[in-house]
Amino acid sequence: MELTINPTRLFNNLRELAKIGMNSEGGIDRAFGSESDRQARNWLIKYWKNHLGIEARKDAIANLWLDWSGKKTTKPIVIGSHHDAVPSGGKYDGALGVLIATEILQTLIENNIHLEHPLSVISFTGEEPNPFNLSTLGSKVVSGRLKQENLIKSSHRDTAEALEVAVEKLGGNIHELENALLTDGSIGAFLECHIEQGKVLEECHLPVATVNCITGIHREEITVNGEANHAGTTKMIDRKDALIVASEVVLALEEALGSLEGIVGTIGYFKVEPNEANIIPGEVRMLLDMRTDQPQLQKRVLEEFYIKIKRIELKRKVAIENKVILEQPPMPMNPQIMKCVDEGIKDIGIENFSLVSMAGHDAANMARLTRSGMLFVRSVGGKSHCKEEYSTDEDIVIAANAMLKAVFHIDRELE
Amino acid sequence: MELTINPTRLFNNLRELAKIGMNSEGGIDRAFGSESDRQARNWLIKYWKNHLGIEARKDAIANLWLDWSGKKTTKPIVIGSHHDAVPSGGKYDGALGVLIATEILQTLIENNIHLEHPLSVISFTGEEPNPFNLSTLGSKVVSGRLKQENLIKSSHRDTAEALEVAVEKLGGNIHELENALLTDGSIGAFLECHIEQGKVLEECHLPVATVNCITGIHREEITVNGEANHAGTTKMIDRKDALIVASEVVLALEEALGSLEGIVGTIGYFKVEPNEANIIPGEVRMLLDMRTDQPQLQKRVLEEFYIKIKRIELKRKVAIENKVILEQPPMPMNPQIMKCVDEGIKDIGIENFSLVSMAGHDAANMARLTRSGMLFVRSVGGKSHCKEEYSTDEDIVIAANAMLKAVFHIDRELE
Repeated sequence: MELTINPTRLFNNLRELAKIGMNSEGGIDRAFGSESDRQARNWLIKYWKNHLGIEARKDAIANLWLDWSGKKTTKPIVIGSHHDAVPSGGKYDGALGVLIATEILQTLIENNIHLEHPLSVISFTGEEPNPFNLSTLGSKVVSGRLKQENLIKSSHRDTAEALEVAVEKLGGNIHELENALLTDGSIGAFLECHIEQGKVLEECHLPVATVNCITGIHREEITVNGEANHAGTTKMIDRKDALIVASEVVLALEEALGSLEGIVGTIGYFKVEPNEANIIPGEVRMLLDMRTDQPQLQKRVLEEFYIKIKRIELKRKVAIENKVILEQPPMPMNPQIMKCVDEGIKDIGIENFSLVSMAGHDAANMARLTRSGMLFVRSVGGKSHCKEEYSTDEDIVIAANAMLKAVFHIDRELE
Repeated sequence: MELTINPTRLFNNLRELAKIGMNSEGGIDRAFGSESDRQARNWLIKYWKNHLGIEARKDAIANLWLDWSGKKTTKPIVIGSHHDAVPSGGKYDGALGVLIATEILQTLIENNIHLEHPLSVISFTGEEPNPFNLSTLGSKVVSGRLKQENLIKSSHRDTAEALEVAVEKLGGNIHELENALLTDGSIGAFLECHIEQGKVLEECHLPVATVNCITGIHREEITVNGEANHAGTTKMIDRKDALIVASEVVLALEEALGSLEGIVGTIGYFKVEPNEANIIPGEVRMLLDMRTDQPQLQKRVLEEFYIKIKRIELKRKVAIENKVILEQPPMPMNPQIMKCVDEGIKDIGIENFSLVSMAGHDAANMARLTRSGMLFVRSVGGKSHCKEEYSTDEDIVIAANAMLKAVFHIDRELE
């Protein structure tokens, strides 16, 4: 009989984990460092111990590891995702990947099947944007992108709790980060299952697909320096209204993007000063987030955008400053792992398809240290980071079984 | 010898009062209800007592009054302004009017000159926008625009101190507001001297002018209801970005105003939700402030603006809500008082000119209960509500002497 995962058990675990941090509206509050983060970790550790018989291990940034030996003592295959959530987030973002990894290992254990390679399950620390302003924290640390000196000054933007203390509460220690580093090539492969968070799979009528690349992210801070003044006594002709100029900047971005495919740009943060009804806006500070897997496309759009900004500056006689604050290149997934994921999907009778992930993921950091891949599950309506986030039971079972098959392919095809 | 005010004394008083609430950058922090508000009041009361020999009187909203009897026991002429300031405001806005009124009375007293009418000096409570969200508080109360039931629930937006307590600390009592009411016609005339806060006088090369009308103020709250979504995974074509739509609204206002004279419109308050770099804006809430002395002009601009908003709604398929929150009609100044101010200005050899005040003033409320007028003093560079606010000594002396002359004209021409 063919090996498959246990759907009832997987759905039950999804339901149980979703109870931790669920607010009165049904959204999940499980930010990194919160009490519900701690509770979710304890739930996982206890479940792994009671049902898989394995004691979890924590590294210095408090990533949770579950190690299972293989027939050979070679580099392990690592599968997993994260258990934290954005404020009032959904039940599937992160949690699904951790629980499918758990279900795969549990299925192997109960069937007494041993892989050639050791297999580890991981639940990463702090993947989502959080009050410490550090997303994909756990995978950035293991891949060497964040070091002790980058973290020592971080603190919670509201409570001012030091990151050091938050990590300590979760069982980590930022003074021993070098022990968490995996840049020595000690991992054989990494595979993450995650919800798509977009509408591509829905539009293609496909339950799952292989990710071929994780988007690059370009972020810049744009500041318009106008002149604050009295909203009554200053004639229209004498004004340097920063909000009017910033409005032109917002629309210039939309125009520069035009109807190009494969790239998106957003101004999501926008702050007006002094922001009083009777004072002409003196300054607007905004953040531009641009994402694509094609650097030449980004270059083209930014060039067009900067020309438009120059024109606005000349026309309005105000200074507009741009400062790039993040330039994260696109991260292609490993072709060998992609092939294994393709084969896993084909094994259960689903048509192969691959797409770019327009969201960042821990897999992008893991790709710096090992052959990495991702499998996406269809998101109903493309909704994510909200309580309406949903993937059907049917799609989840397909994803879990395709992941199981993919792990076997990786185990066979990796040296 | 002709009677004139004492410039040295006036400049000295301006300097002394400006010390109260001056911050390290040189701006004046003297918000209604603050410790420096209390100190400024004490300075005035002490000065009036020591140098004019008159004990100040406080009404129920803590307006400060200084009463001097006339030859006849008829309705008094009231002159004055306010002593509070916007955060980091200037030395002249309000304070100049109070100190010129003080100087006029002091000049009369030391010269043993008695007017036919009683003369009162007033320094109003809380004229500026303040953390209790109540501007021209003192004059709104005496003119019956604000009653106890409107004030009982007000509190400081940061400290939550009840307005009741704040007024009590200043020597008022909001449970006795009916005692402060002046709607019984008991005042003969009101005259306020104030800085222009705009550039009209500077452009006309005139030190002072008569105000013919105080602008009407129309305020509305505009809300754009878009759809918050993931800034990476949501394609441009699937978005309902509230910031893009709101940017079109901002520019539509500018277009609707065109190059029309005599009207200004500002969106000064603008709030984006959820305001995160990686989330498409779901909602923008803004406040429009429109000012003119010509209601038909406002009607024309608003009609044009609303047509443009409808077009934006149709094009972008998002809902835009408008809610009028203030409709304050323009308040013409009294022709008899204007004539007296004109004559006062002419008496000292300055060409007559009149203009609309594009800022609100206590005089607009006083015009509801008595013949009211204003005299404006040139603002250098039109700057106001900032530490750079400045009027020259020369212009201030002209203003004070023109005010003195105007008071004589009012005294002669009023029944």
